[in-house]
Amino acid sequence: MAGNTFGEVLRLTSFGESHGAAMGGILEGMPSGVPIDFDFIQLQLDRRRPGQSAITSPRRETDQIEILSGIFDGTSLGTPIGFIIRNIDAKPADYDQLKEAYRPSHADFAWDQKYGFRDYRGGGRASARETISRVAAGAIAMQFLKQQGITIHAWVSAVGNIQMEELKSFDADAIYSNEVRCPSPSDAERMIAYIKMLRDKGDTTGGIISASIQGVKPGIGEPVFDKLHASLGHAMLSINAVKGFEIGSGFKAASMKGTEHNDPFVNHGGKITTSTNFSGGIQGGISNGNDINFKVAFKPVATIMLPQESVDASGDPAIVTGKGRHDPCVVPRAVPIVASMAALVIADQLLRSRLSRL
Amino acid sequence: MAGNTFGEVLRLTSFGESHGAAMGGILEGMPSGVPIDFDFIQLQLDRRRPGQSAITSPRRETDQIEILSGIFDGTSLGTPIGFIIRNIDAKPADYDQLKEAYRPSHADFAWDQKYGFRDYRGGGRASARETISRVAAGAIAMQFLKQQGITIHAWVSAVGNIQMEELKSFDADAIYSNEVRCPSPSDAERMIAYIKMLRDKGDTTGGIISASIQGVKPGIGEPVFDKLHASLGHAMLSINAVKGFEIGSGFKAASMKGTEHNDPFVNHGGKITTSTNFSGGIQGGISNGNDINFKVAFKPVATIMLPQESVDASGDPAIVTGKGRHDPCVVPRAVPIVASMAALVIADQLLRSRLSRL
Amino acid sequence: MAGNTFGEVLRLTSFGESHGAAMGGILEGMPSGVPIDFDFIQLQLDRRRPGQSAITSPRRETDQIEILSGIFDGTSLGTPIGFIIRNIDAKPADYDQLKEAYRPSHADFAWDQKYGFRDYRGGGRASARETISRVAAGAIAMQFLKQQGITIHAWVSAVGNIQMEELKSFDADAIYSNEVRCPSPSDAERMIAYIKMLRDKGDTTGGIISASIQGVKPGIGEPVFDKLHASLGHAMLSINAVKGFEIGSGFKAASMKGTEHNDPFVNHGGKITTSTNFSGGIQGGISNGNDINFKVAFKPVATIMLPQESVDASGDPAIVTGKGRHDPCVVPRAVPIVASMAALVIADQLLRSRLSRL
Amino acid sequence: MAGNTFGEVLRLTSFGESHGAAMGGILEGMPSGVPIDFDFIQLQLDRRRPGQSAITSPRRETDQIEILSGIFDGTSLGTPIGFIIRNIDAKPADYDQLKEAYRPSHADFAWDQKYGFRDYRGGGRASARETISRVAAGAIAMQFLKQQGITIHAWVSAVGNIQMEELKSFDADAIYSNEVRCPSPSDAERMIAYIKMLRDKGDTTGGIISASIQGVKPGIGEPVFDKLHASLGHAMLSINAVKGFEIGSGFKAASMKGTEHNDPFVNHGGKITTSTNFSGGIQGGISNGNDINFKVAFKPVATIMLPQESVDASGDPAIVTGKGRHDPCVVPRAVPIVASMAALVIADQLLRSRLSRL
Repeated sequence: MAGNTFGEVLRLTSFGESHGAAMGGILEGMPSGVPIDFDFIQLQLDRRRPGQSAITSPRRETDQIEILSGIFDGTSLGTPIGFIIRNIDAKPADYDQLKEAYRPSHADFAWDQKYGFRDYRGGGRASARETISRVAAGAIAMQFLKQQGITIHAWVSAVGNIQMEELKSFDADAIYSNEVRCPSPSDAERMIAYIKMLRDKGDTTGGIISASIQGVKPGIGEPVFDKLHASLGHAMLSINAVKGFEIGSGFKAASMKGTEHNDPFVNHGGKITTSTNFSGGIQGGISNGNDINFKVAFKPVATIMLPQESVDASGDPAIVTGKGRHDPCVVPRAVPIVASMAALVIADQLLRSRLSRL
Repeated sequence: MAGNTFGEVLRLTSFGESHGAAMGGILEGMPSGVPIDFDFIQLQLDRRRPGQSAITSPRRETDQIEILSGIFDGTSLGTPIGFIIRNIDAKPADYDQLKEAYRPSHADFAWDQKYGFRDYRGGGRASARETISRVAAGAIAMQFLKQQGITIHAWVSAVGNIQMEELKSFDADAIYSNEVRCPSPSDAERMIAYIKMLRDKGDTTGGIISASIQGVKPGIGEPVFDKLHASLGHAMLSINAVKGFEIGSGFKAASMKGTEHNDPFVNHGGKITTSTNFSGGIQGGISNGNDINFKVAFKPVATIMLPQESVDASGDPAIVTGKGRHDPCVVPRAVPIVASMAALVIADQLLRSRLSRL
Repeated sequence: MAGNTFGEVLRLTSFGESHGAAMGGILEGMPSGVPIDFDFIQLQLDRRRPGQSAITSPRRETDQIEILSGIFDGTSLGTPIGFIIRNIDAKPADYDQLKEAYRPSHADFAWDQKYGFRDYRGGGRASARETISRVAAGAIAMQFLKQQGITIHAWVSAVGNIQMEELKSFDADAIYSNEVRCPSPSDAERMIAYIKMLRDKGDTTGGIISASIQGVKPGIGEPVFDKLHASLGHAMLSINAVKGFEIGSGFKAASMKGTEHNDPFVNHGGKITTSTNFSGGIQGGISNGNDINFKVAFKPVATIMLPQESVDASGDPAIVTGKGRHDPCVVPRAVPIVASMAALVIADQLLRSRLSRL
Repeated sequence: MAGNTFGEVLRLTSFGESHGAAMGGILEGMPSGVPIDFDFIQLQLDRRRPGQSAITSPRRETDQIEILSGIFDGTSLGTPIGFIIRNIDAKPADYDQLKEAYRPSHADFAWDQKYGFRDYRGGGRASARETISRVAAGAIAMQFLKQQGITIHAWVSAVGNIQMEELKSFDADAIYSNEVRCPSPSDAERMIAYIKMLRDKGDTTGGIISASIQGVKPGIGEPVFDKLHASLGHAMLSINAVKGFEIGSGFKAASMKGTEHNDPFVNHGGKITTSTNFSGGIQGGISNGNDINFKVAFKPVATIMLPQESVDASGDPAIVTGKGRHDPCVVPRAVPIVASMAALVIADQLLRSRLSRL
């Protein structure tokens, strides 16, 4: 109801303000019997962690997770998995001016209008620090998916106007080999240079994350309202700074003809599949066994290190200049977040699909 | 759980197969005391109805709604509003071949994999005929919104490669003045000609619907997971044939800089608003009082009147040729559907926002 | 949210006012592939129908169900099952006085306070006529349960001070062999006589319904908050006129010692079970394989055919005398309602339990 | 879905195994602006704490709560309130035998059947230690209710066969003045003596908790399925060891006549109320403004300090003797649990009722 829960069977409820005591969550609905590797969870958190490279926010958080329940002898119990991550390097003093003035394109004003009262320190609950709980939960979900033969990859495919070239062969290991998480090394270099250039000017940029999910059997997704791509879209659009979502052909589909766009069914060695994949692996809201491909557009980070005209809560003019520690481009750190949200969606829908048949 | 319910407070649960006895639904959570105009509901249904123009499916349904409960003396009771619309012009024989062969880019195969058993007649529940319940419920929600000073407009902004020009002044009345529901008369003409040309060839095309919502007060939307645009995106992506969703700047945001994209807060005669609206009226997932603008991409209709190669349930080759009565382009009839889903989202989130404060 | 939906996986959403056009509902979440016998549904509705005997309300409804979706060739599709039952013998004029005065121990006053506006005819949505949708949905759920080897019996075990004797052997067929639905013929006779005597005086009486569920495998029920008996209790307490619920030993447990109450585990031919069943077949909120036994207390029907002092909406004194057609004792017709709600709970929890393990 | 969440608007999701790292939960949906007194939360936890008196379990937990989010400057933010309570005095070795044998009338067997794998230490998640999260959340809910003029009292009204006398004037302060939480001092003494006697024999006893809620305005409760007493019943039956629930007249209603049971409406100084209260403050599932009265039956604690015959997981005979630290009677410590669950129900339904009218 209040929007802090995601999923139907596998449900993440998260809590935490950016400069409060801790972030955390409860992942409910994980079946019993799933082996859980804690190191993998921490690895995913480290991939999202600030301060990890020259192109991310310098906030220094260790982001160590403590899992408090739901796992016994390295295996899920079927009971809720509670976890917390302490906020250590909080610098609330950086945000004192924000009691007064609304940062452009931030949540400050809208939040004030909604609740009449807010924790202004570091964006409070509106901060993207909240996504840490998604990554923790997503890392657990991924271990369940792995057992089911499903893998998820997300990567940066555009930063500003720099679009990643079409790759001949996709090397998933290359994604995390560079700071910007683009599997094309040459494009990655150009993206990093662009981000650094903007950072030095106090400016920021947007970008695109692409993702692909392999191994989802046909039959996952709930018509009518919870079509698989509708759930994916909901998940992605709930991530801070996201402005657009495309499944398969996306907006390009609007200018195509049926004769071009239809994916012919073929028999590949006894397995029915499609020879093209404009559908993005989903038809009628249900997986068809092909790769599930989607794209997510991120706006430029709103906090720029330049003075901006704004107003305060009384409507009086105010100048806002970015303080605090922020990313010049959000997409590199958002790669594990996109993958995590995808994992939560697929795991949830996979479990829901157990209920379709007698 | 099984995906036939949409919304949290204002909840639509729908039912019905394309060639079954009736379509219908229950709209739960409408507060008591809302005057309901039955003629407006029927008007909206008529705007979605097949057979209404030369560029839509010739299926002849009267689509008369019967409201069975929840309204007394023309006013909502606060109890669930049950309604049905009979299927009259069903021609199941058109679909006999579909017992055997999978139509490309249709739900047939995925549905079979999920349920192991389906009503193959006219797509069964996977048919876009299901959206009739959304339009009925949306028309009721619109009457609640109207009382709250909120209006919603949706219109066709692209068909194939024909993009609507930027209008100097937007005339909402112009939308329904032509068959294609594009408020620019000259673009509308070109779109209609293009659709007719494709129809005559047995082909189909995709398109884009744009929408704008006026009058939403600041403070609507539930962080973290149910951001207002995440709910809108979910709603739109659940409509048949939708492949993409953009809020505000959308995918264009990815190539912009923070200095370009940030929306400065200004004081307009005592009211805090923003001087640009790349945010699309939503910041941090919460409405900021500005217009809420979004776009929805539709793929070309999958049923084309030309032979296509496919396979049957055994994986053997099969030729599929479109029969039945279908639209050459879905966007004209989808305009009221987009508006209806937007109405359901805004009404639901408006009610949810009553719970934010003491 | 607004309380018209019951269940998590198998969900009934109902609608309808007593004197509106129709009652009905949508049963969502029934898996595909369940054979559905329409005659059994109608049989159950007939067992609940008014006018069926001398000790029930003389309202003459045929209560014919029309199923509109979700079933194809006699088998469930996995899509929502929509159904309606028309209100035929509505006599709204009987209720004209109720615009003015509040009937004692009826919902009139509380409903007015909640909604500020109500359909006063026959109790509107507060009428027990609403339970017709429960019986329809429960009859469908029973067919799923039957396939899973589960049977449910409910019967009248007390009317007023007449308690049914302990039966040596329980004959389920005897339940519906008499008007009062008590499997002990001699007690049934006494109960019927008592009800007739009260009816002739214009008075009413309460009663108790007992129920027993056979064939539920161990492992059904969701700790912590949705313990199987908590779901059963919720279901029963939601039925009109219910004032109490007991699982297994019930209130008697309060006066017992642990040494008396504990159910010893024993090995019966390789199957672990308990030699006594004070637990009522549920331990820790989860079924243990033993019979699930519970009791439900009903208050006397509030509508008596005698003048009662009350007040009207302005708080002025008013005399209320029962009109309309009412039951002198609700329990005979409530027997299929109790069984139906139990079926909905068990089917829902059975489906939910598919999600417990990897 | 998996039963770890309670409530619709005000939602508690809890986690924790008895001998794991910590218990805890997230309370979501508390509106912003509610002043929160941390000392009161700790006081309520202390009232539930083991080791507090001679008649409770000697497990020594400090039960100190740490609130991690959702409250800023002593006031609720409208964001989720995350909290944890560490498990300190866990003695898992006491439970080594339980890997092997099923304790009679415990959850061990049913839990094993459901999940195939469990944390056997101290009952794991099936332990009543789980209720600590309910008391923490309930104490927060009570502060919201207090602001709304609502107070809740629960007390022990029976232990074994010792029933509390009817009190002439009810003194809420007397409840917590003695170890057994019975406001009648003479009955309290008898109850305590009885519990001690049983404890010394290694036996246990059941009991009854009564509760009364004052100050609920008319109009709270959601027909049809979430009647206010159905939600209360669900809440109470979800508490460990509960076997029965009664609202108002309860099972006594079954033997009453309509002429005896109906509560006449009267005008008390301009306020419409009822002169008797067999309804227990709820009519048609909606509060009528009168006191809401209910009773909850608890079975005797299953862990007795005497040898009992049982079987192990292989079905072989096994003798189980209680170890660990347990209560001889659960009702004294269950008093704050009953009050807490009632607070969660009333607060949730109060918030839901904001949605009933335009």
